[in-house]
Amino acid sequence: MGSCFTPRVAEILGYYQGQNPGVLTNLARLLTHGRLGGTGKLVILPVDQGFEHGPGRSFAPNPAGYDPRYHVKLAIEAGCNAYAAPLGFIEAIAAEYAGQIPLILKLNNHDVLQDEKDPLGAVTSSVHSAIRLGCTAVGYTIYPGTAERRLQYTELSEIADEARDAGLPMVVWSYPRGGGLSKEGETALDVTAYAAQIAAQLGAHIIKVKLPSAHLEQAAAAKVYESAKVPRETLAERVEHVVQSSFDGRRIVIFSGGAMNTDRNALLDEARAIQAGGGFGSIMGRNVFQRPHDEAIALLSDVMSIYEGK
Amino acid sequence: MGSCFTPRVAEILGYYQGQNPGVLTNLARLLTHGRLGGTGKLVILPVDQGFEHGPGRSFAPNPAGYDPRYHVKLAIEAGCNAYAAPLGFIEAIAAEYAGQIPLILKLNNHDVLQDEKDPLGAVTSSVHSAIRLGCTAVGYTIYPGTAERRLQYTELSEIADEARDAGLPMVVWSYPRGGGLSKEGETALDVTAYAAQIAAQLGAHIIKVKLPSAHLEQAAAAKVYESAKVPRETLAERVEHVVQSSFDGRRIVIFSGGAMNTDRNALLDEARAIQAGGGFGSIMGRNVFQRPHDEAIALLSDVMSIYEGK
Amino acid sequence: MGSCFTPRVAEILGYYQGQNPGVLTNLARLLTHGRLGGTGKLVILPVDQGFEHGPGRSFAPNPAGYDPRYHVKLAIEAGCNAYAAPLGFIEAIAAEYAGQIPLILKLNNHDVLQDEKDPLGAVTSSVHSAIRLGCTAVGYTIYPGTAERRLQYTELSEIADEARDAGLPMVVWSYPRGGGLSKEGETALDVTAYAAQIAAQLGAHIIKVKLPSAHLEQAAAAKVYESAKVPRETLAERVEHVVQSSFDGRRIVIFSGGAMNTDRNALLDEARAIQAGGGFGSIMGRNVFQRPHDEAIALLSDVMSIYEGK
Amino acid sequence: MGSCFTPRVAEILGYYQGQNPGVLTNLARLLTHGRLGGTGKLVILPVDQGFEHGPGRSFAPNPAGYDPRYHVKLAIEAGCNAYAAPLGFIEAIAAEYAGQIPLILKLNNHDVLQDEKDPLGAVTSSVHSAIRLGCTAVGYTIYPGTAERRLQYTELSEIADEARDAGLPMVVWSYPRGGGLSKEGETALDVTAYAAQIAAQLGAHIIKVKLPSAHLEQAAAAKVYESAKVPRETLAERVEHVVQSSFDGRRIVIFSGGAMNTDRNALLDEARAIQAGGGFGSIMGRNVFQRPHDEAIALLSDVMSIYEGK
Amino acid sequence: MGSCFTPRVAEILGYYQGQNPGVLTNLARLLTHGRLGGTGKLVILPVDQGFEHGPGRSFAPNPAGYDPRYHVKLAIEAGCNAYAAPLGFIEAIAAEYAGQIPLILKLNNHDVLQDEKDPLGAVTSSVHSAIRLGCTAVGYTIYPGTAERRLQYTELSEIADEARDAGLPMVVWSYPRGGGLSKEGETALDVTAYAAQIAAQLGAHIIKVKLPSAHLEQAAAAKVYESAKVPRETLAERVEHVVQSSFDGRRIVIFSGGAMNTDRNALLDEARAIQAGGGFGSIMGRNVFQRPHDEAIALLSDVMSIYEGK
Repeated sequence: MGSCFTPRVAEILGYYQGQNPGVLTNLARLLTHGRLGGTGKLVILPVDQGFEHGPGRSFAPNPAGYDPRYHVKLAIEAGCNAYAAPLGFIEAIAAEYAGQIPLILKLNNHDVLQDEKDPLGAVTSSVHSAIRLGCTAVGYTIYPGTAERRLQYTELSEIADEARDAGLPMVVWSYPRGGGLSKEGETALDVTAYAAQIAAQLGAHIIKVKLPSAHLEQAAAAKVYESAKVPRETLAERVEHVVQSSFDGRRIVIFSGGAMNTDRNALLDEARAIQAGGGFGSIMGRNVFQRPHDEAIALLSDVMSIYEGK
Repeated sequence: MGSCFTPRVAEILGYYQGQNPGVLTNLARLLTHGRLGGTGKLVILPVDQGFEHGPGRSFAPNPAGYDPRYHVKLAIEAGCNAYAAPLGFIEAIAAEYAGQIPLILKLNNHDVLQDEKDPLGAVTSSVHSAIRLGCTAVGYTIYPGTAERRLQYTELSEIADEARDAGLPMVVWSYPRGGGLSKEGETALDVTAYAAQIAAQLGAHIIKVKLPSAHLEQAAAAKVYESAKVPRETLAERVEHVVQSSFDGRRIVIFSGGAMNTDRNALLDEARAIQAGGGFGSIMGRNVFQRPHDEAIALLSDVMSIYEGK
Repeated sequence: MGSCFTPRVAEILGYYQGQNPGVLTNLARLLTHGRLGGTGKLVILPVDQGFEHGPGRSFAPNPAGYDPRYHVKLAIEAGCNAYAAPLGFIEAIAAEYAGQIPLILKLNNHDVLQDEKDPLGAVTSSVHSAIRLGCTAVGYTIYPGTAERRLQYTELSEIADEARDAGLPMVVWSYPRGGGLSKEGETALDVTAYAAQIAAQLGAHIIKVKLPSAHLEQAAAAKVYESAKVPRETLAERVEHVVQSSFDGRRIVIFSGGAMNTDRNALLDEARAIQAGGGFGSIMGRNVFQRPHDEAIALLSDVMSIYEGK
Repeated sequence: MGSCFTPRVAEILGYYQGQNPGVLTNLARLLTHGRLGGTGKLVILPVDQGFEHGPGRSFAPNPAGYDPRYHVKLAIEAGCNAYAAPLGFIEAIAAEYAGQIPLILKLNNHDVLQDEKDPLGAVTSSVHSAIRLGCTAVGYTIYPGTAERRLQYTELSEIADEARDAGLPMVVWSYPRGGGLSKEGETALDVTAYAAQIAAQLGAHIIKVKLPSAHLEQAAAAKVYESAKVPRETLAERVEHVVQSSFDGRRIVIFSGGAMNTDRNALLDEARAIQAGGGFGSIMGRNVFQRPHDEAIALLSDVMSIYEGK
Repeated sequence: MGSCFTPRVAEILGYYQGQNPGVLTNLARLLTHGRLGGTGKLVILPVDQGFEHGPGRSFAPNPAGYDPRYHVKLAIEAGCNAYAAPLGFIEAIAAEYAGQIPLILKLNNHDVLQDEKDPLGAVTSSVHSAIRLGCTAVGYTIYPGTAERRLQYTELSEIADEARDAGLPMVVWSYPRGGGLSKEGETALDVTAYAAQIAAQLGAHIIKVKLPSAHLEQAAAAKVYESAKVPRETLAERVEHVVQSSFDGRRIVIFSGGAMNTDRNALLDEARAIQAGGGFGSIMGRNVFQRPHDEAIALLSDVMSIYEGK
């Protein structure tokens, strides 16, 4: 903090006017930390795949990642703004790395040991634990489109009340899923924009969505998108629409790609589109920690260079 | 405590840096008690089968076990690190044997009076009772793979918060079950490793899983295991993978066999594989208390000799 | 108390070592009151059928029983150890008969206005009311075998924590029921023993089950009962097995017959079997209060004579 | 309880109509226990002198009394209605003697290590502890006449609220003291009657005062006593006046002598006067436990014979 | 625990029957730890002088003692049963030395920055902190004889209720002080015995007093001591009387000398007298930590040899 508190950071904090100073302070910590500190851009390393996909699928490609210390060290070395993980991974490193990087505690998680069309994560930790572990924010994943999404919205709403009182910003992962959506529809532009809006309306301070495709899933939406000629040809245009859909850019929205993408050029092109479209940055997990250490560092460095406008 | 506080115990406590000193102290009590005190290995006697399977099935083979005093005396005589049981069995002996062996109160239990594909245990006691009874840790069973597992994860998460504040380590029994898993899949290597990882991410200080088979249950996992050539031919290799999947060996993982196994040589081979694979020890219930007293003591002695490296 | 505090009472209290002196004192009150005071045997009059079956079914056979005073007077006159009932019946007599007989407040009840395979009682009163009403113990009914039994186990666990802190013993009625059990299975020997064990593990100080039949319900249990040759031909043998299944006789277990049984000889034979099998006594409701007053007194007197060993 | 529940006990309970059944039940327990059970008379053994006067002064004359078990055994053997003591002495025996005699926990105590004209005891235990220890009543000492007595009245009032909710009768020791009273005045008839009235008005269920002398301390009172010709020549007449001053005999009032009185005949004369004057009994401490064991038992026996009207 | 759980430890735990198993377990931990583990004797190192007397007075004689780690290491090296200190010193070492020695958290402290005849300590920590820090017991100092001692007794009573519920034994330092006592009277035999009795009556599980002189302070007591011929010539006789005054030896009483005593032989003579008089051990602070390290270790070793009966 301090020297990185730029006019751009002040401007972004201004979007959250009325939040208590605790929330503002922690948002500022995220925006002023790391190599991108002060730029208004964020690159966050999240590692929840051990829970979400299982340890073998997640860490066997780069076995160093079985050790919880590997990831936080990687994030620190690369100069990320923050490191996000479930309780176990955070607890395993919070004392040893206290004060070296902002931590985001993922408060719900979902495993894939049961085959489900409509996933419904479990609350796996608490605001209380986030406080005792010195976290800077808490995270929660919603699955808009699932049958029981209302349970999640309500749960998020209650956790957000508690988090705000504790001065902790809410980071909301918003992943459209569920029996009613086609596979392609999960990343459709209209659906992604809708998912971002729902997160913002639920009080998210930071929204995380997947990069949208040009597909339009819902007929009623498609009709309007087409009549209003919402540009959606390029990825940058689609990013711009999602940012617009998140309170006209007055909420921080960050993007992830989808599956492990071996082509680093494709990943850099995504970052360029996010930058061009006015996105606030990237959240990169598997594409980082499943790469060998030095490749991962190099990749993150190149992504950050893009967000620095270099 | 005291003379059994070896460098290896200190090293293991180091994995839990940042936990409050109450949790560290009780972990140390488990690691320094009994014949294996100081070795970093644990052999724990759990007796919850009266609740889980019924008294006749559990104790008729060795009727001395109907008396709650039998088991704790057996554990003390054999030099186990701890004795684990549901409320009733613990209450029945806690005053008479106070200070003679660490006690682990199992906080949830499940009976088999209803035929269920997706078991969901009941909370049967509390952290409050663990404290008044002088317990050293609390235990909780999750069934990853069941339809309602998220209720269990959340319940565990809440109990774990309370237990940690009370300085009590959480021991998590993680048993994959449920309609989506084949019978063979319940002890598949990928599923067992996943179950261990979930327990660790939920904040377990000690994880208890079944010994894994070489089977791979989930297609997406199998693909990675095979491409990454994760060794799984021998039981020792499989133990090693589960230990690795538990934060690269930075969480205590102990193993049980499955059904009552009359062949003591097979049981000793299992212990040898756990030792060779870097496991932290065994939790042995039916195979101990359903044997005649002297056989049980002899078996535990031989198992402990293996963990002593003899 | 006092002259009825015999060595046998002291021996039974010894089974509960570690319980607080409040619980021990109230257990002693139950064991030293009435005609059987000091023998270690109990005969308890419970009247919850008004709630459980409706007033007409319960009291029309002997209309004196509509009056709540009838039952407590009957219990006092007969020299019972205690009188058990739901809140309304207890409140209606607690002041007028204060100090004349120990009272047990039933904390949950279930009506039959809905036809249910899997009954789930309601909490109908509180430990707080038990204290203000001068009760000596509280009661709770579980239905092992029902789909939602885990809700009951957890509720009981929470109430038991509160009751123990208030020095009130828990009396647990354990009635196997539910869709997975055959009608015959509800009183099968293996199932009854299992139900007693569950109550004991949940922390019951006094367990109440139905007299078991020789039937074995669960295949896995039947295999063990037969290979271990658990005697079950006579009722006394079956009582002995249930007592053994209740911590080897270190928890008080009392028995009820089932339906209203007009044949008093059959009832006396049941008491003889309970006595021969080492049971701690009887809980007799309908068979008492639905009989004309003098017959009821005479029946209870004969039952008590059996428990006195006469 | 039970056979000792006489019409006289019912009559006395009738004085307390409107108290909750818990309080009535515990009053009945005091009135039906021991040799005097059912007579409406009480002889209580209190041992708080270890705290109030110091252990040497209290127990050196009969060193068996250093052991907390001595006193409760003495009270049981003699057939007292209850045993009263501070927390330490009650805790030391409550489990071992649970159910053998009603216990009264003295909730405040005062030592004599500071020379004070106006003593002000300390709260040394709680209603919570009385419940967990299985006590039948709680006790509290007030010093009417002291400068800060209002602090005590208020403290008693708050404890009494809590005790009543817990079904525990309040026994109030009412000892006039303080700078404004002459030494003789502390046991003056008018002052003793006044002290009893204050205790009754504060909600005491049982009042304990010293035997009054014929002296009248307060001029305004003396004028009325003389004009109204209140009889006060004999001790029995004075007892009668104190009983009358305690709601016309509708509150239980028991009496103590003062200092250790070696003359057993004088003590028996006091009991005869209490009996003749309609007092409810005696509370005898030092005069009992400082005597050799057999003398103490004989003395209590003779006192009880007097209360039995023999 | 374990091998040090001797019949003598079981006998001492028997004095505390009725305490919850949590308290019994922690008492056992104190009695089975260190070189004296299992003997029934204790040597405890307390370091609260930094607060009580100031750091310069306390640590300048041996400046190594400014470092909080010095003391706990000394206690571990010497094989003490426990180490006692205020919050700051405990917090500074609890994680690093977790599991190596039982810790006692002093819950109140008093500084000497104000010149007071009647000291009244401040509560400086909580049962909650004791639990999170993994402490085995909590300590509290009372000053019987001071004008406001009743405030301390009540505070101790409330803390003791909370500590017992949390399974933590209360260690009570009982130091007679205050305007009413002569300087000599503070360690008079009658006053010391009285102080021990008060602590025991307030529910102390372990009592700490100073070694008494032969002086008798209070006239009323002196009369009884002389008429009852209480032996008090030798220090061993006086220790014996204090032990007797602590529930006839059924509460653990340990002794400290007074001021820093450079003569090690005098200190060893004190230990011999404690041993001869049946005391439970020593609590040695300044005489240990103000000596050079090796001298301190040697002194503690010689004291422990005395308690081992060598």
